[in-house]
Formats: sequence, C-alpha cells, structure tokens
Amino acid sequence: MTALSPTLQLACELIERPSVTPADADCQAIMMARLEKIGFQCQSLRFGDVDNFWAVHGSSGPIFCFAGHTDVVPTGPAAKWQTQPFEAVIQDGMLRGRGAADMKGSLAAMITACENFVAAHPNHSGRIAFLITSDEEGPAINGTVKVVEWLEHQNEKITWCLVGEPSSTDTVGDVIKNGRRGSLGAVLTVRGVQGHVAYPHLAKNPIHLAAPALAELANEVWDEGNDFFPATSFQISNINGGTGATNVIPGELEVVFNFRFSTELTADILKARTQAILDAHQLDYSIEWNLSGQPFLTAEGPLVEAAQLAIKAVTGSDTILSTAGGTSDGRFIAPTGAQVVELGPVNATIHKVDECVKAEDLDKLSLMYEGMLKELLA
Amino acid sequence: MTALSPTLQLACELIERPSVTPADADCQAIMMARLEKIGFQCQSLRFGDVDNFWAVHGSSGPIFCFAGHTDVVPTGPAAKWQTQPFEAVIQDGMLRGRGAADMKGSLAAMITACENFVAAHPNHSGRIAFLITSDEEGPAINGTVKVVEWLEHQNEKITWCLVGEPSSTDTVGDVIKNGRRGSLGAVLTVRGVQGHVAYPHLAKNPIHLAAPALAELANEVWDEGNDFFPATSFQISNINGGTGATNVIPGELEVVFNFRFSTELTADILKARTQAILDAHQLDYSIEWNLSGQPFLTAEGPLVEAAQLAIKAVTGSDTILSTAGGTSDGRFIAPTGAQVVELGPVNATIHKVDECVKAEDLDKLSLMYEGMLKELLA
Ligand SMILES: [Zn+2]
Ligand SMILES: [Zn+2]
Repeated sequence: MTALSPTLQLACELIERPSVTPADADCQAIMMARLEKIGFQCQSLRFGDVDNFWAVHGSSGPIFCFAGHTDVVPTGPAAKWQTQPFEAVIQDGMLRGRGAADMKGSLAAMITACENFVAAHPNHSGRIAFLITSDEEGPAINGTVKVVEWLEHQNEKITWCLVGEPSSTDTVGDVIKNGRRGSLGAVLTVRGVQGHVAYPHLAKNPIHLAAPALAELANEVWDEGNDFFPATSFQISNINGGTGATNVIPGELEVVFNFRFSTELTADILKARTQAILDAHQLDYSIEWNLSGQPFLTAEGPLVEAAQLAIKAVTGSDTILSTAGGTSDGRFIAPTGAQVVELGPVNATIHKVDECVKAEDLDKLSLMYEGMLKELLA
Repeated sequence: MTALSPTLQLACELIERPSVTPADADCQAIMMARLEKIGFQCQSLRFGDVDNFWAVHGSSGPIFCFAGHTDVVPTGPAAKWQTQPFEAVIQDGMLRGRGAADMKGSLAAMITACENFVAAHPNHSGRIAFLITSDEEGPAINGTVKVVEWLEHQNEKITWCLVGEPSSTDTVGDVIKNGRRGSLGAVLTVRGVQGHVAYPHLAKNPIHLAAPALAELANEVWDEGNDFFPATSFQISNINGGTGATNVIPGELEVVFNFRFSTELTADILKARTQAILDAHQLDYSIEWNLSGQPFLTAEGPLVEAAQLAIKAVTGSDTILSTAGGTSDGRFIAPTGAQVVELGPVNATIHKVDECVKAEDLDKLSLMYEGMLKELLA
C-alpha cells in the first residue's frame, strides 16, 4: 500500500473524531496546531456549546478566508453502513466515513493548500484566514453568525470567502456555488370552529376554508428568477388538521411552508403577498415567519475568476456557476460585503449512509484551493 | 322524599350497571325479567362479544317494535363529573348518570309503557316486540344488523319501529326523527414524489396537487336536499401530510372525509362524482370508501301519526319531524320495509360529562310510548 497523501492523512484523522453537531471532538485543535506551525495566529471562539475558531496568516491587506465546519450530521443506524461511520477507510479509491464529503475532506484540503502555498510564498500579499464552526448542521446560532459579529467588533472584513461545502455534482470542480437563494419559512394556523360532521352548520371547517387559499399560493408565480437564480419556489412541507375521529370537524389547521427565493424579491415582499392571498380568502389565521437566510450572489469578480482558473488548471474543464440547492453558512458572511464562493467535493452521498468521496478528489481540491491563493495573494 | 315512579326506579337500576360498549352488565336480563313477567317471549341473541335480545308479546299481526341499546359511551375522567357516572342520582329534578339520556331512560320508559298497556289491554291486536343490543355505540357489527338478519331467517317483519334515541331538543317530544341522512366515509391518499424543498423540480408535492381538488369538493353543491332532508353535506375531518421536517416535500397526503347525504342521491352517485373531480385534477390517488348507513325516511303513515298524537296528548304541543343529526340503528331496520321513528328525551348532554335528563320527562316519555301502543294496537 502506498503512503497516503498529506490531505488524505488529515482527512482520515478528522473523520475518526465523532463530531456530531455541536460536538467538535478536537477537530479544531488538530487544525489549529497545523496552522500555528506555519505561522497562523489562531483564536478559539466558544459561544454557548459551540466551538469555533478564527485564524489569520499575514498582517494586512485583503483577507482570503476559508470557511467551513467540523461538525457532521448523525450517522443513523451504524449497522446500515458498509463500514463504521467514524472509521476512515479507503477502499477501491473511495474515502469512506461520515464527513468525508461534508466537509472534513475540504477542511483537510484547505490546510494542506495553505501549507504548500505558505512554504512557496512566505511573504504573500494580503492575509489568509480560517473561519471554522462546529454548528453548521445544527441550529446555526452560536456558530458562523457569532464569529461574524465578533469580526465586526474587531473591524475586520473578509474580502474573499471560499466555503468548502460539497458543491460538485459529478466530478470535483464541475460546479461552484456563487450564491444561494434565500430561505423563508412559516407556520400558518387557520382557525375554524370545531363541530360534529352531522351538524356542519354549527361548525366552520378550517380545511375547507384554507383549501382554495393553499391552491392559490401553490399556483402563484412569485417571480421569474433572473440570470443567476431560478424562479422563487413555494413548497408546503407539512399539513395537519383533525382529531383522528372521522366524525369531528377540526377547529384548526396547521400548514408549514417554505420559500426559496431569488434576489428579485425580498422576504418582506413575500410576507406581504402571502398575507394578501390569505386575507383575500377571508381566513382567520395567524402566521409565524422564520427567515433563515437572505439570498446572496457573487455574480462576478476576482474570487469567481480565481476559482474558475484554479479549477481549469487542475481538471482542464470549465466550471458551472450555480445558485441552486440548500443553504450554507455563506448566507451569514455574504451580507458583510464579502465575495463568497462555495467549492468542495461531489455531494452525492452527503447526509446519507455510506458517505464517501473519491480519494484523489481531495488531492485535486487541495490543488484548486492552492491555485486560488496563488491567483489572489501570490 | 317521595317514592320514585316505576320508570325512574328502573332507569336508576339500569344506570348503575356500567355497561360501556360492548358490555351489557346484565341490563338486558333485568329488562327480560320484567317483560317475561307480563307475558313476553324473550330470546337472548349473543353474536361475538355482543348481547342482544328479541322479545314478543302477542301471537300474530303487525309488529310494533321498541328498538334500543343498553350500552353507553365511556365516561371520560370520572373526576370531571359532579356525581359518579355510574351512580344514578336525582338532584334538583334531574336524573344524572351515564346513559340517563342515551338511552337507559328510554329503555325504562318502554318497559313501564308496556306494563301499563298490557295490563289494560291483555288481548291487544298485533304484537309488541323489543329489539335491544349492547353494541350501538361501538362498531355496530354484532348488534342490530345481526338481529335483523336473524329476523329475516325467521320470516319476521317489523311493521312499526320506535327507536328510543334522544330525539328531543328543548323539551321532551318537541322533535322526533322520521328519517336519517346516509353516511358515506372515505380515506383518500394522494401520491406525489418526495423530495427536498430546495429541489422542487425533482419532487411532486401532493399537497399542492390536491389543494384545488379539495377546494372544489368543499365547494360542490351535491344536491339541494328535499322536503325531508337538508342538502347533502361534505366534510373533511382529517388531513395529514409531511414528515415533520420543514425541508422535505412529502410523498403522500391523506385526507379523511364524510358525506351525510339525502335521499336525492345514492352512495354510488357520490362516489362517481367525487372521483370525477379527483380525475379532472389528474391526481394519482387511491380511495377507500366506507358506507356506514343508507338514508331512510318514514315520510308519513300510521307510525308518525301515532307519535304525533301521543306526544300532543301528553305535552299539548305539536312535534317537529326532523332527519337531521347523526346516525342510529334505525338505518339497519328501515331497509327491511319498516316504518321507523325515533322518539326519546332531550339530547343536550349525551356523550358528555354530567349526562342528565329531567326526571319527569321519563314519566312523560312512558306515557307517550303507551299512547302510541294504544293508537296502533288497542
Ligand atoms: Zn456542510
Ligand atoms: Zn343512543
């Protein structure tokens, strides 16, 4: 057996720490030790039960920041895995284990990219930074948000941010995310009057009252999207009404829904338009809104160009810019004015049983990250 | 304290037997003993875990049958009752206890009515019968249905049936039920394709697909009713879709609904019209129908007239004919060709905590029942 590359060695070391959110299981200590060795200034930032750290190399100038998370989602029943979820195993060219793709592989690639870049360019321009949390997969309250606030108090601003989320679809680097849709959730409660199905005139059925309004919401064209975003989408995830008895008209209906929205709209516009539809149907309702992320976009500029060039240098192929998919902690960093791009391994197995990545992809990823540093800070 | 009337004494005796469905707790033995004493031929008919009996007085001619049930619904938490649910208490003129109104009071009134009538008319024309079950409040599988089948095998036919269900609204005898709407239930499953809310193009949201169809069903005018029945009513009692997660589009939606329908329509017509609406919305669905009762009607004739006359003789007031409200075991007897009328005490407290009736109403009810026997069999 050949010796593992430094990136794979570090990825294995991180995977073997069972850092299910919000646990960090000392992954950050491992990363900080490596960074301190090459001259980074590291600062642990624990908020609540969440470990975070900020690290910087260089003394002034624009900041290129690697952002990521050491926490992983739960494994589910370990018996369903082909290998043990917290044992890193390389088999048939695949690195297996929880976090291999999301995102301990990326973390390892970031570290080795810096090691190589700093060795070759000890006096690079600008600064290299790390913003690492252990609460990306959880409530995301004491993680990146808090570190961003802390940076504001320090009067520090990130210029370029590379988030290591697994952005790739088929081969590493085929897709990067240069923005994300906003996410606006809601719990809608429609009130009626409970009664017996045999006496409908004494009751008001909230399911009947709500149905045409829900049909209209589902059918509404919220926007047409734009060059960077698909059209805003409305989805009902949960609907529940009824006591279980087949002869009782329920008094209430609960509907949970979510918008994924483009930069053509704001959360306030969506709220107003939703409520206008509910009001037009004269519903007696209450609604609890939860804005979990504003949309953001890095349409063009040095960061996107650096990513495109670095990827092409490694794979020979062009990359696709995309804003599709779920949210990431980029939503907290972009509003500070930073350019934000997500580049990481293939995401086919994330959050699933038998999570894995092609082992060689992590070495390629390290080269891409190093290439971006060269483009921007050499 | 004055001695209780025979009707109230018997009502108390029955209430103190905790005969929650399907238990009879020897109520039927008490009734049969009283009936045998005055010359009834009694036949116990146990089907499954359900006690029933059939009793007849007289040897030939049209049958006037008292129909009813000895079982009661559960009490709920006894601590919520002002008195013990299975202790019959007369307080401020009210007889309190589970079953006082539904329908042990009626059963007692039936027995004393027969005792008085048979004493005065030992050689009455026709026959008097009892059809009593202990499964009216439960699944209703081994109760009245089975006794009706047994009667068919005996070639016996009920001519006039008086069901003792609590039909009255404000004062005893103010309303009698001369029919009931049909009841048709359904469980509808609408299928979509499960997915993530961030990738709606890969999913098919069954809530979105179903909403306009449900709105149309809720809005449909099924019929206009007729002189005896209110318009057919459609009610959704339960709707459930979603995994609980706010970011998952569910794969299925379940909708439970019920028709209460008039004699203007049949169950088959309702099924066809419902499915036509679902089909027009191109839903992928399955539906399980449950016909729990055909509508029935005794528009006019000797039985209704006898009830009207007997009530007026006791209260001095006219009675209202109604087909509103829930189902009763009359739905199983009417299809044999019998005229069916329901007459019983005020139903305000049935199936509730602190069930009660005015004590004097049971004595009036006994007189009404006796009056009907006189009209039809004296
Ligand atoms: Zn992640
Ligand atoms: Zn009853």
